[in-house]
Amino acid sequence: MLRLFRFNYSKSQTEEEGIRIGIKIKLDRKNKIAYTDEMEHITALNRTSYGHMDKGRLILTPEETLYLMDIRNARCIDDKEGTEYSFDEVAKIFYAKKLMARFFTLKDWRDRGLIIRPYSEAKRYKKWSEKKYPSEEFQLDKYKFEGLFFPEDLMTISDNMEIGKLLYDTYWFGQFGTYKAEHRGKTYKLDIYETIFLMKHSGLKTNYSKTKIMKFGKEKHKNFKSMYDVYEDWRLRGYVLKTGFKFGTHFRVYFPGARPGRKGSEWIHSKHVLHIFPKKEKMLISEWARVVRVAHSVRKTFIMAIPSARPRKMNVESDTRANKSKRKPKHIDLDFLLYHRIKGGIAMPKENNPKFLLLSLSEEEYIGGYELSNALDECKQHGLKLLLGIADRESGVTYYLVYKINLPGSRYEYYEVEWIQP
Amino acid sequence: MLRLFRFNYSKSQTEEEGIRIGIKIKLDRKNKIAYTDEMEHITALNRTSYGHMDKGRLILTPEETLYLMDIRNARCIDDKEGTEYSFDEVAKIFYAKKLMARFFTLKDWRDRGLIIRPYSEAKRYKKWSEKKYPSEEFQLDKYKFEGLFFPEDLMTISDNMEIGKLLYDTYWFGQFGTYKAEHRGKTYKLDIYETIFLMKHSGLKTNYSKTKIMKFGKEKHKNFKSMYDVYEDWRLRGYVLKTGFKFGTHFRVYFPGARPGRKGSEWIHSKHVLHIFPKKEKMLISEWARVVRVAHSVRKTFIMAIPSARPRKMNVESDTRANKSKRKPKHIDLDFLLYHRIKGGIAMPKENNPKFLLLSLSEEEYIGGYELSNALDECKQHGLKLLLGIADRESGVTYYLVYKINLPGSRYEYYEVEWIQP
Repeated sequence: MLRLFRFNYSKSQTEEEGIRIGIKIKLDRKNKIAYTDEMEHITALNRTSYGHMDKGRLILTPEETLYLMDIRNARCIDDKEGTEYSFDEVAKIFYAKKLMARFFTLKDWRDRGLIIRPYSEAKRYKKWSEKKYPSEEFQLDKYKFEGLFFPEDLMTISDNMEIGKLLYDTYWFGQFGTYKAEHRGKTYKLDIYETIFLMKHSGLKTNYSKTKIMKFGKEKHKNFKSMYDVYEDWRLRGYVLKTGFKFGTHFRVYFPGARPGRKGSEWIHSKHVLHIFPKKEKMLISEWARVVRVAHSVRKTFIMAIPSARPRKMNVESDTRANKSKRKPKHIDLDFLLYHRIKGGIAMPKENNPKFLLLSLSEEEYIGGYELSNALDECKQHGLKLLLGIADRESGVTYYLVYKINLPGSRYEYYEVEWIQP
Repeated sequence: MLRLFRFNYSKSQTEEEGIRIGIKIKLDRKNKIAYTDEMEHITALNRTSYGHMDKGRLILTPEETLYLMDIRNARCIDDKEGTEYSFDEVAKIFYAKKLMARFFTLKDWRDRGLIIRPYSEAKRYKKWSEKKYPSEEFQLDKYKFEGLFFPEDLMTISDNMEIGKLLYDTYWFGQFGTYKAEHRGKTYKLDIYETIFLMKHSGLKTNYSKTKIMKFGKEKHKNFKSMYDVYEDWRLRGYVLKTGFKFGTHFRVYFPGARPGRKGSEWIHSKHVLHIFPKKEKMLISEWARVVRVAHSVRKTFIMAIPSARPRKMNVESDTRANKSKRKPKHIDLDFLLYHRIKGGIAMPKENNPKFLLLSLSEEEYIGGYELSNALDECKQHGLKLLLGIADRESGVTYYLVYKINLPGSRYEYYEVEWIQP
């Protein structure tokens, strides 16, 4: 069950002060600079880390300016003419791509009483963390058996009960009967990923060639190749991957050693689901978030695979070609440097380290595998965790924390994505 | 929290009998007909409604044949040569599009101890039911005010606090501050649907024309026009539609009379979410099901809009054009006629009416708005409810029940979709 986040807004000391003293922001319209040069205001704003000092002036970012106007009753005055600007007018003057998404995420963070600073101030820290997953070398004998592949259903059935039983019981390939009711029916069924894997890594033969079956898969899913590659990558590390249909994802994942059936009186439950998000794809943020939501609602850890992101065994020739192609990754600018809570208070830029880098997004935007992959690169370089802040159409913000997964021996990169309420 | 369905398989009397007597199915390979002509077997199979009689033979469908082989240990024998066929061989002989999806759904229904018959036997019944929704004529005065539209964020902000407050409090257009924290910030924000609606039906003016804003929307979402049409259709019936982002859908829906804020000490919660599924679109079943799943996990009723399905005010000229276009709807064959439980037992074809028509699908397939719309037409004609049975890669089946919504005065057709465990 999803719960909407609720928190109590309490005015901080500075906020009270801000309202009391009536902050006045000056606007140099020609140079598009918002600032204050009055000592009382500088002191008040400095205390909660707004802006940066430059030649005796405290320069404010457009988002800070809008926030102070919206929440702290700041007034914005033209520094030549003394005329007052409305919120809309200031937004118009500073108009830029993603201004609203950036404003809403800054507002949400500030509303939590926490400090948010420009991305440009990010240095190098040591908060990038990776989650180590177990990994083993998967060994499979060459079992010779035959199956009948159905191109329409992307499924193989086999009469070979003996090998079927062995592959099912030992490695959890395929299914008898139905999941959780394997005694209901004696037909051995393999899904298309299992079919290709067993044709490649064991002795399964079907009425079609591997290549042809791969082609059937590609006809149905444009990303089929990526999906198979990821399936194979995890299987070769000892994991069991089965359909994630009931959880709204491509696969559900069992850790090495999982066997079908019960463990004592309990069914073995998967704790992870995995979804493939190819680097070259673009996806509506709302659709991306939906996949994570379903996983969250069934209490599974969500793993995002970006399959063509930096395969470890890179072919030099194809790498060069990729660099020349139109799909060359665009550089992505992250938006903010986030300070979080610390024991007994909130982290402050002068005394504490930041915790996250924030990518500000809005529900209506698209996100690409390249962008996400590059954002993660930026975070790794800065040694900070990536937080995605997504503003919906009502300007409510939800946060997704991204962790890198360290899966020794795997060919691709994987991330855990967690819906958090910071 | 999703729960996987579990039920106890208990062998019915007939099933016991079937196993005891060892059903023998004969196969006329040339004519692709499976049958039995032995009285003992005919009697046993007739009792639970398998097959149909034709000149002293009980003809079985391919799915029934496979099911009897898989579950009841039936043997399949060539009626000329006396040789025995394996499950795979029978599947190969009867190979057809969707054979596996049909087999798995038949199996699942039969495994529940319920009767399933060919679609071709469907007559006319009176079980088609519609859910009547309240509807009122929406009246809005021409409030003159200005806003600043942000094409990147698809959002309008306005300084006009007075009209903003009125539109927000009375009709729940737009948002101050953040949802559930409207006191945090004084900026009045409208999403793109609200923007276009208020430009069209009230006196909002922005820095762009309606047409231009519609164009911005279409650049982001290929289905934007459909989304706006549906938004407008419900708004004009007195409903309030806000973003469904947190619930993984296009909109969340409040019934006529909803106002923002609390009712007593409770927040007003939406009970419905709405998703647009254009007639011309094709969608992977797994993606379609995901949207319904999120709604289910947050206990909302899921409404599916198929916006270009039979608009009530039809333009004759464009109708003719549509019929000539490539997008002409394909006829869709439903798969099975389903009998359900009745008081004290299970419904039987001779004594009782069926309850649903089943469309058998598999996780890996695509479903189109046209197909769905046509399937619903077929059901209406037969006077039965539509059930979608989706077989996943492990052959587990999940069911979605579809109800027509009767929303008086609306231009399109809407359906409630419910994930059920029959």
